[in-house]
Amino acid sequence: MRIVLDVMGGDLSPHELIKGGVVAARRLSVDLLFVGDPAVVRSALSSVRVPVGGKFDILPSSQVVEMDDSPVRAVREKKDSSLVVGLEAVRNGDADGFVSPGNTGAIVAAALLTLGRCARIPRPGILAALPTLSGPDLLVIDVGANADSTADQLESFAMMGATYARDVLGLRDPVVGLLNIGTEETKGNRLAVETHARLARGPLTFHGNVEPHSLLVDRPVDVVVCDGFVGNVFLKAVEGGISAVTSLLKKSITRDAVATLGALLLRRAFSNVREVLSYQRRGGAPLLGVQGTVVIAHGRSDAEAIASAIDVARREIAAGLVERISTGMQGWPADGG
Amino acid sequence: MRIVLDVMGGDLSPHELIKGGVVAARRLSVDLLFVGDPAVVRSALSSVRVPVGGKFDILPSSQVVEMDDSPVRAVREKKDSSLVVGLEAVRNGDADGFVSPGNTGAIVAAALLTLGRCARIPRPGILAALPTLSGPDLLVIDVGANADSTADQLESFAMMGATYARDVLGLRDPVVGLLNIGTEETKGNRLAVETHARLARGPLTFHGNVEPHSLLVDRPVDVVVCDGFVGNVFLKAVEGGISAVTSLLKKSITRDAVATLGALLLRRAFSNVREVLSYQRRGGAPLLGVQGTVVIAHGRSDAEAIASAIDVARREIAAGLVERISTGMQGWPADGG
Repeated sequence: MRIVLDVMGGDLSPHELIKGGVVAARRLSVDLLFVGDPAVVRSALSSVRVPVGGKFDILPSSQVVEMDDSPVRAVREKKDSSLVVGLEAVRNGDADGFVSPGNTGAIVAAALLTLGRCARIPRPGILAALPTLSGPDLLVIDVGANADSTADQLESFAMMGATYARDVLGLRDPVVGLLNIGTEETKGNRLAVETHARLARGPLTFHGNVEPHSLLVDRPVDVVVCDGFVGNVFLKAVEGGISAVTSLLKKSITRDAVATLGALLLRRAFSNVREVLSYQRRGGAPLLGVQGTVVIAHGRSDAEAIASAIDVARREIAAGLVERISTGMQGWPADGG
Repeated sequence: MRIVLDVMGGDLSPHELIKGGVVAARRLSVDLLFVGDPAVVRSALSSVRVPVGGKFDILPSSQVVEMDDSPVRAVREKKDSSLVVGLEAVRNGDADGFVSPGNTGAIVAAALLTLGRCARIPRPGILAALPTLSGPDLLVIDVGANADSTADQLESFAMMGATYARDVLGLRDPVVGLLNIGTEETKGNRLAVETHARLARGPLTFHGNVEPHSLLVDRPVDVVVCDGFVGNVFLKAVEGGISAVTSLLKKSITRDAVATLGALLLRRAFSNVREVLSYQRRGGAPLLGVQGTVVIAHGRSDAEAIASAIDVARREIAAGLVERISTGMQGWPADGG
């Protein structure tokens, strides 16, 4: 299995990204194809004493899509960018999947243009896996591939999320919930009410509406469906709540000697919190619904996070997820596929 | 100044609510008019040894709008509910403001029906005051009066939020931000892009888009504008992030004797966090844009929270906010009014 890593995207240096690729190749049974400026890749590889060839290869590209480039224009004008060249390698069968910590909008636009949509999927969606306090991660889709969505699109996000939960995470009968501001079926905006009615008709196992405040603690469902604008606000607001508590605790602690001692004794508990809740340092978010495996890593990914994003791609490829999504709702109920 | 308190709404007993009213009347210069079942109010008042008359009076009503009643139907069918009777007292000039911990949807519907909208305000909005780590509270409007909104409505939420910040909180030149999923003006859904363009034209001081993750820590603006669905998701997701950290810390702490000692030493820091961040136990959320002062308290409000909600109403009345909102954008720039 060979995975293309876009080493020119993101806020970090290509060196850190390449280090992540090397870590992943050593840990997992994957080969890496680094797409970017060949001189930069060669120098980074030699600095970690890794020879080119064998598990590691270079795909040259001369342009870079920047984080603040306009997505559609960047994809049209930068044909020799690491982003476009890397995705073309997936389309041509030279690689099995693509990982990039770059400009999310540009990755979505380039993936649509280069790989195209899966059959019967109106729009791709980005799936985020959030750590929870009870059980496995909570999957949320869409967290930002689209700003405006229809109920038809939300229904297909639900199907893709449930397929991921079943085929990649191995959940037997994934339960889907609709992110909403009340539990009754009449609650929410027009989009939520219409989506509720569609999901209630089946074939997925639908729990009904779920509200944002208890999701990480109670984990009432496996997959949460929402439009990309609301999903992105949800993710960032959870992050905001977490960082408000931790900043405030830090402030209170440094003001007071007794508290400082207390914090020392609590060190393990605090690092446990960081570990469990820091979803932004883990993994990558798969873009589902395009004809190829594409994983978006965080712009501030370090080597460990990049290795984890490569593992997300590896698991998706191993599960044959793109195929499974293309067979669509026919694959349900859960024992099908 | 006389404030009506709806003692039949909410999840708590009328006794707790009445206690809150008594606390407020003793602390602030307000008189209380308790609307609800007179026998219940009389018994609650006598249990805290408060005579009827003077600062405390009773407005009898025979019906109750339940938390799960359909808002519009409840308001139409329960003409003698504490909600409708209490709002009529404001409309008729028998009281200066109304506070209820009841069904939010029903309060909005009843306030619209009984008091009507302010001139040039297309829809009322609920304003929430969130505690932050730097400076005064962050105002967010709308957090749930409306499920679907237009840019025109969001623009009027901005005006109402800024007027509140100026005339009730005393900020000289309140800065408004638009809740969005990116900082560039082209980011977000159609509603956000259109609202951005309107706010950029003035007359309010507009900071541009703000993202959810840093709002409580950095507090980049005074007023955050959003549609009610997104605002409600934002509030509940922040709450979810906070409760995830605190639950996880609790779990880690009880598993481990050293950590338990650490937690003991950190007691003050933890209670500081609870105090600063527990917006749901504080105050009440004003419903802005109707022709009268209406404050929605949390359904699980205790006496202290009710007293605080009454104070929110008192400050709004003292500032003449309803008048100020009715004069609208003419009141701006900030030195006007």
